[in-house]
Amino acid sequence: MAELRPGTVDQDELLRGLQAHGLLVASGVPGLYGQGAAFAEVVAALDRRVTEAATVDRPEMFRFPPLLPRQHLETNNYLESFPHLAGAVFAFEGGDAEAVEQAARAARHEDWSEHQRLTDLVLTPAACYPAYPAMGARGPLPLGGVTLDLGAAWVFRHEPSGDPARMQSFHQREVVRLGAPVEVCQWRDAWRDRAAELLRELGLDVTVDVASDPFFGRGARMLAASQRQQELKFEILVQIAGPDPTAIASFNYHQSHFAAAYDIKTADDEVAHTACLGFGLERITIALLRTHGFDPAGWPASVREVLFA
Amino acid sequence: MAELRPGTVDQDELLRGLQAHGLLVASGVPGLYGQGAAFAEVVAALDRRVTEAATVDRPEMFRFPPLLPRQHLETNNYLESFPHLAGAVFAFEGGDAEAVEQAARAARHEDWSEHQRLTDLVLTPAACYPAYPAMGARGPLPLGGVTLDLGAAWVFRHEPSGDPARMQSFHQREVVRLGAPVEVCQWRDAWRDRAAELLRELGLDVTVDVASDPFFGRGARMLAASQRQQELKFEILVQIAGPDPTAIASFNYHQSHFAAAYDIKTADDEVAHTACLGFGLERITIALLRTHGFDPAGWPASVREVLFA
Repeated sequence: MAELRPGTVDQDELLRGLQAHGLLVASGVPGLYGQGAAFAEVVAALDRRVTEAATVDRPEMFRFPPLLPRQHLETNNYLESFPHLAGAVFAFEGGDAEAVEQAARAARHEDWSEHQRLTDLVLTPAACYPAYPAMGARGPLPLGGVTLDLGAAWVFRHEPSGDPARMQSFHQREVVRLGAPVEVCQWRDAWRDRAAELLRELGLDVTVDVASDPFFGRGARMLAASQRQQELKFEILVQIAGPDPTAIASFNYHQSHFAAAYDIKTADDEVAHTACLGFGLERITIALLRTHGFDPAGWPASVREVLFA
Repeated sequence: MAELRPGTVDQDELLRGLQAHGLLVASGVPGLYGQGAAFAEVVAALDRRVTEAATVDRPEMFRFPPLLPRQHLETNNYLESFPHLAGAVFAFEGGDAEAVEQAARAARHEDWSEHQRLTDLVLTPAACYPAYPAMGARGPLPLGGVTLDLGAAWVFRHEPSGDPARMQSFHQREVVRLGAPVEVCQWRDAWRDRAAELLRELGLDVTVDVASDPFFGRGARMLAASQRQQELKFEILVQIAGPDPTAIASFNYHQSHFAAAYDIKTADDEVAHTACLGFGLERITIALLRTHGFDPAGWPASVREVLFA
């Protein structure tokens, strides 16, 4: 089982403050929280703000559930790179006797996994994953490619932490671009700058940096170095709590990784390239609460105007 | 593994129509679908309509993630009554060697469950489940009790089916009432009538009926009969596809079940009673598409006005 990463003193204090103000509701599991009205309203406002900023791309809208066919994790290399973060859905297999036994064990809070079997579903680890097979199934992209607005999707990362900004279940607000390499790269870079501007408008003191994913195991360092060297990932970071700044948005160029896996072709019948951007809506909300105070009604007028006008 | 319940001829035809019009996007797993723009916009409009209808209750707003602490399923009897519908979250436990082995098995689409262990999370089976422990932790209810608006929450039911109206992952739009028995009962009954009116305004030919839950195993028939006899559950039904009408909303009186489990007290220090109502947003959307046609732009003006004005 993934061990709890305890919060630092200031992360613990921030979490207590968020809970005391009814912004987050403790569930008993670190990294899983209910959201009070004021928190959820900021999340929804940020979602709208990104929708608005994405209209220039005239995106096609899709919404996907928080679950993904298991087959996609088996196809897209996630289990190689991030086995520690994945969540798999198991379900009961058995008859009356097994059900009675399972319920009895559960009531005693003992291990009741014996009659649970892997289903054909996993938790969605990244909001854009269901979009690639859907696009592959539709045939070649139109000339100029497409942009997809995936809205605010729930994703899962199995990393229990005392840092309120490191949730196990949270909203990724993703926009995805599929097309020729140069179209996709330019789009990714333009959005990185547009997103930094958008977050600065909200009064956040952000920086932009090359970044890498939290790969698992022995090969992790090499994979991360290669990803950085090729500038495949950028993050926007802001100081929230803890020793290091927290990533609140990321901008990822996948080259042909997903397009090759799902046979996504450009109008010219070349293998497409893809990129995605994701805003961490809960992290941005926490950054705003940390920066401007626990009561959104008291935030600077310029920030309130952008979010709630 | 739960067996696929195949669709009837008209359910298959409906599903094909929904997919051909880009309303639902096949994922490869029965009961798991992406939503195209037109479908997602109706879901969002229904969510807003319920929010509006609930304002008379002056509810307190909460939002909860699609996951629930495992402990709650162990506490609230769900695993006794519905072991077949529950989904449990498992995650990897192991080092480099196990990760390599797991990834290799997964790449060959073989069983890779060996190094997966039950976590402290399950999929949320009913949108209101996280609300009861949260209310219990807050201390006695105010005089008159409280109403909670939980928004559109993703829930999970492990019941793969060819019927497009029977999804494994879907939005329950729940409102919850906690208070003295008479307050809670009156609220539930008033909402049952208000909801039928709301759905009739949308041009749906609905009926209201006493109902029971799909209990598992030998005791199922007796539990269902008792639930019906006490009128603990009402459903609003509409003919979509298949031999029987489909439930699109339910109204549930839990008596002291959840309040006793989570120590929820009224202002008079009595054990509270609770009730909830849930609209199945995807089911209502499918019912509307079936009734008024696959293009929401062509729906009757009276319906469009209610949803999109």
